[in-house]
Amino acid sequence: MAETIHLNTIWVVLAAAMVLFMEGGFSLLEAGLVRTKNAVNVTMKIFVDLTIGALAFWAIGFGFMFGDDAGGFIGTSLFGAPDDIQLAIDLPPAAYVLFQIGFAIACISIVSGAVAERMNFKAYVLVAAFLTLLLYPVSGHWVWNADGWLAQMGMKDFAGSAVIHLLGGSAALAIAWILGPRKGRYTDGSVNVFAPSNIPLASAGVFVLWFGWFGFNAGSTLSAGDAMLPAIALNTMLAAAAGGASSMLFTMFRFGKTDPSMVMNGSLSGLVAITAGCAYVNQWQAVLIGLVAGLLVIGATLFIDRLKIDDPVGAVAVHGFNGAFGTIAVGLFDAEGGLFTGGGASLLGTQSLGALVICIWGFAGGAAIAYIAKATVGLRASSEEEEEGLDMAYHGIPAYNELDRFSETAKAMYDFEATTGVTIKQAEPLMIKAGK
Amino acid sequence: MAETIHLNTIWVVLAAAMVLFMEGGFSLLEAGLVRTKNAVNVTMKIFVDLTIGALAFWAIGFGFMFGDDAGGFIGTSLFGAPDDIQLAIDLPPAAYVLFQIGFAIACISIVSGAVAERMNFKAYVLVAAFLTLLLYPVSGHWVWNADGWLAQMGMKDFAGSAVIHLLGGSAALAIAWILGPRKGRYTDGSVNVFAPSNIPLASAGVFVLWFGWFGFNAGSTLSAGDAMLPAIALNTMLAAAAGGASSMLFTMFRFGKTDPSMVMNGSLSGLVAITAGCAYVNQWQAVLIGLVAGLLVIGATLFIDRLKIDDPVGAVAVHGFNGAFGTIAVGLFDAEGGLFTGGGASLLGTQSLGALVICIWGFAGGAAIAYIAKATVGLRASSEEEEEGLDMAYHGIPAYNELDRFSETAKAMYDFEATTGVTIKQAEPLMIKAGK
Amino acid sequence: MAETIHLNTIWVVLAAAMVLFMEGGFSLLEAGLVRTKNAVNVTMKIFVDLTIGALAFWAIGFGFMFGDDAGGFIGTSLFGAPDDIQLAIDLPPAAYVLFQIGFAIACISIVSGAVAERMNFKAYVLVAAFLTLLLYPVSGHWVWNADGWLAQMGMKDFAGSAVIHLLGGSAALAIAWILGPRKGRYTDGSVNVFAPSNIPLASAGVFVLWFGWFGFNAGSTLSAGDAMLPAIALNTMLAAAAGGASSMLFTMFRFGKTDPSMVMNGSLSGLVAITAGCAYVNQWQAVLIGLVAGLLVIGATLFIDRLKIDDPVGAVAVHGFNGAFGTIAVGLFDAEGGLFTGGGASLLGTQSLGALVICIWGFAGGAAIAYIAKATVGLRASSEEEEEGLDMAYHGIPAYNELDRFSETAKAMYDFEATTGVTIKQAEPLMIKAGK
Repeated sequence: MAETIHLNTIWVVLAAAMVLFMEGGFSLLEAGLVRTKNAVNVTMKIFVDLTIGALAFWAIGFGFMFGDDAGGFIGTSLFGAPDDIQLAIDLPPAAYVLFQIGFAIACISIVSGAVAERMNFKAYVLVAAFLTLLLYPVSGHWVWNADGWLAQMGMKDFAGSAVIHLLGGSAALAIAWILGPRKGRYTDGSVNVFAPSNIPLASAGVFVLWFGWFGFNAGSTLSAGDAMLPAIALNTMLAAAAGGASSMLFTMFRFGKTDPSMVMNGSLSGLVAITAGCAYVNQWQAVLIGLVAGLLVIGATLFIDRLKIDDPVGAVAVHGFNGAFGTIAVGLFDAEGGLFTGGGASLLGTQSLGALVICIWGFAGGAAIAYIAKATVGLRASSEEEEEGLDMAYHGIPAYNELDRFSETAKAMYDFEATTGVTIKQAEPLMIKAGK
Repeated sequence: MAETIHLNTIWVVLAAAMVLFMEGGFSLLEAGLVRTKNAVNVTMKIFVDLTIGALAFWAIGFGFMFGDDAGGFIGTSLFGAPDDIQLAIDLPPAAYVLFQIGFAIACISIVSGAVAERMNFKAYVLVAAFLTLLLYPVSGHWVWNADGWLAQMGMKDFAGSAVIHLLGGSAALAIAWILGPRKGRYTDGSVNVFAPSNIPLASAGVFVLWFGWFGFNAGSTLSAGDAMLPAIALNTMLAAAAGGASSMLFTMFRFGKTDPSMVMNGSLSGLVAITAGCAYVNQWQAVLIGLVAGLLVIGATLFIDRLKIDDPVGAVAVHGFNGAFGTIAVGLFDAEGGLFTGGGASLLGTQSLGALVICIWGFAGGAAIAYIAKATVGLRASSEEEEEGLDMAYHGIPAYNELDRFSETAKAMYDFEATTGVTIKQAEPLMIKAGK
Repeated sequence: MAETIHLNTIWVVLAAAMVLFMEGGFSLLEAGLVRTKNAVNVTMKIFVDLTIGALAFWAIGFGFMFGDDAGGFIGTSLFGAPDDIQLAIDLPPAAYVLFQIGFAIACISIVSGAVAERMNFKAYVLVAAFLTLLLYPVSGHWVWNADGWLAQMGMKDFAGSAVIHLLGGSAALAIAWILGPRKGRYTDGSVNVFAPSNIPLASAGVFVLWFGWFGFNAGSTLSAGDAMLPAIALNTMLAAAAGGASSMLFTMFRFGKTDPSMVMNGSLSGLVAITAGCAYVNQWQAVLIGLVAGLLVIGATLFIDRLKIDDPVGAVAVHGFNGAFGTIAVGLFDAEGGLFTGGGASLLGTQSLGALVICIWGFAGGAAIAYIAKATVGLRASSEEEEEGLDMAYHGIPAYNELDRFSETAKAMYDFEATTGVTIKQAEPLMIKAGK
């Protein structure tokens, strides 16, 4: 007979793998939405999340988030994510830790998009470390540690609309604001559109994220026996479908063109918005939440541009606004305590407070680390680096190399090997056109 | 001790996620196989499937397919896919519904490829809605509802060679025929080849589809305890390998070049052909079915071109022809009732009848919706739109935007925001070559 | 109550699907790292692995590897991977066979990268067949068949650092050496760098490989009840993160640029190096192993270039060197018998011997098949083919076809159809720039 703990183990390990695979989705989405000259850089930032971010959260952040509570505010034990953590659920600690690593780095990856195309790469490393070490774990503690102060108030955030998405979106907003817009983005009262460089790649990112989200939401049960598990997965699908549908139909009928970026962000917004409530609402409510999310993301995108805060991929609109909306929507539709489901306004108040607090915490933390970066490694790429593109500036190589352009980094590497007597010379240009 | 229903739940939820991820495979495959100027459009059509298609099937189609039977022909209950569906199997309804949504939208995605590069986008929305609301659920009812008339006759289609692939392929054939070929495809008795725009992207699509197919076929057990489950997965792999092998070796030795499109479609054909019989045949039979499928797709591709029916990605050859072949192959190799395995010709007759009926139903339904679209929103893009490419015509943006081309849709969006006083101007061209 | 065998079945089938999906990762990685003119060819070689390679291993190789032992050297039964194999574990044979197919073809895919951009396609088919039929199964037998001579000595290789990665890397080294470098790679004592053609695509490959590796390593438990399962998954993540982190920080601070290829190969090296020991070491040791792997891959890359052996994607450095390192690291850190964990030097000796033997076996086997290919179908593409690119030479089509270049293969196909009276003419060029 199969043990429950073994069933839970493979469920959570597989869900964690899917959540970690979402990093590939972020990378593809961002590489497709930015301009060609910055496509490598956004990809490398995702590698920062997956490497430095993952290690930082594992070694330190996990303890702040899930360790023994101090004052409802922060965890004080479990650093290094030891093997003998006592969980209240029937699950080995290592599976839990792996799943939580996936969540922590998703939170940074949200930020990575909003600051694309002009941030100093080292500043991003700093931001990633700060978020995984401190910012995310602390507010995460408030909601997801049973002794956290928001948890004690009864706040409900099943898979992280607030804990992950709103926090990431709020920090992204602050950093993008302090960082300033990309050159040429807002001039003479105009909003200049830099069209996405690779739509098929971006959409591939959305499909990977959508796939991974089943692990994200349904995996948050941490238990295969959770009676809500299949409903969570179905709600996730329905909200994503509804989010994409409303943004698709709105852009189609209002603007005459079905805008790819908005359809993609509409689907993602449905996913973000259902993340808090996926275990608490029914199917029709999931559809409704998704429909609203798909429209909200359009309005939020326009609103953020009106503030002249430059978010190249719409991360704030998708994760910030819809993270807040999803958190509050639990207060409206929760099967037990929702305003529209006869539960009164109490939960709605708690959810709204929670959303507000996390928004402020994220914004303040984002601003703090932005100013720290500014004062130390430098927050923004130089004007020349931005003009040339961050790919050449920080990585010495273009994303699409049809001209077989010489890799600066490779040169440096071989210079380092000068003792060998080997010298580098540039290969002759290979081709003018792809495939020629 | 772990409950069976919990094991089945995670199995089917994970399999459903894999099936839904196949939409990403369709998108990548089609974006890679069409010309660059239509790569966004095929991607957006997959989003139609995932959004409008998914919601339509969930709200209505599911009931027609799995609701209480009326006359063996159609379901009449379970609309809105309620939570209290009584299943004969040990599985929560929500997991079942999610899995079935994945199947329904796979069926439309088959059509999307065949009509690529010249269909009116709104007509596609109509087609997607019609297929998920009515066409697919009704014939699906015949085979997969225990009271359906083909089910009553004993037709066997384990994971949908007929129900999904042949139906989609037949509808695709009718619509592609009525739609007419792309401009310049058949001129002066010649077949002009528009080479695929992005082979690495297309092949990525095949890998995603191949991965998802393990969920598609093995997930169709709907039960982790099904003794055939591992054999189904192995048969799926072997048939795919054999399909790719035969098309690879054939093109290599017959034409002197190993044709990428044919190798990819050969593998997919092996997958389509084993879908009906994966639970009923042994490993060697799976290999044989795959080998035939890999050759059949080449012949079918040539045959369809001879009819001057233009199918840019070979969807009819892959899904239609091999869907029929796979359905009939069950009559040949079924462990209990196959002609070649000593079971007589009775099952072969039923399978052949089923394939024929579904082919006619799909073709007639496809033709009907094509004429309805023609009479309403318009079936085909205008000559200018087709020339310019559907990406600019319907989505206002090119797939690969190295020139940082101005997004028409974005312009419309910001015009909409005229009250803000913000005006749009086009950003200066960024680069002539990628990476410059 | 759920049966253990059913839990194990879905676990291994899902893990196998993830391992097989890694082929897509190899394809994307290689297509992104080679020059544009060879991107189709590397993809088609992955299809050789997935088709001919999979069938060859299933029909023959599996028996040599897991069949009844003869002299500790080779298996002598189980050809055709029959359904009635008796496994010592609670798992149906078909699931086991499927998982092992995934392993076997991963081994060839390692070779495919090292020989990229200049190998005769038919020679690659020969190499793939030889590896899956004989080379890999025989040394695999030594370690993973309980009666194999290295297994009898107590060699530990949990998921194949030696059996798969070192073997593949060693064979790759020999073949790449005999094949000779790409034209223009080493001239006048210089190392000429051919920059990767598509970094976003290559990184997508890494994300797919990373995802699949959870199936690769944790799936090697073959049992959901293995107490180490979650620790294996976590160790896999930590080593990958550490490998990417060390190569990222090293290139960032030493060369001033964060090199994308090295970061990607650093992460993969962490994964390769933890593969042998993932079930035997603790989390901190996994991090340490990853950190070393991320530096080792840089040194190894430089070293191989100093030998003027041309490995376009760094496969030997990633899989060969780190496969050996990971194997030996078990001798250092194994919880029971590691040198640094108080277990003495005995295991270290066995591991080192095992690594050495497999390295020699792989190298000798690679050399043998290279010479056989040379003497028969020809090992290397002609100078003209290499110059033009293998995509046009062997597949008649470029990877990125913005000019709508005429497909040679398609032409041949339609010539074949001459009886129809249909003639082919080239379509007019579609566009000069993407999206125009």
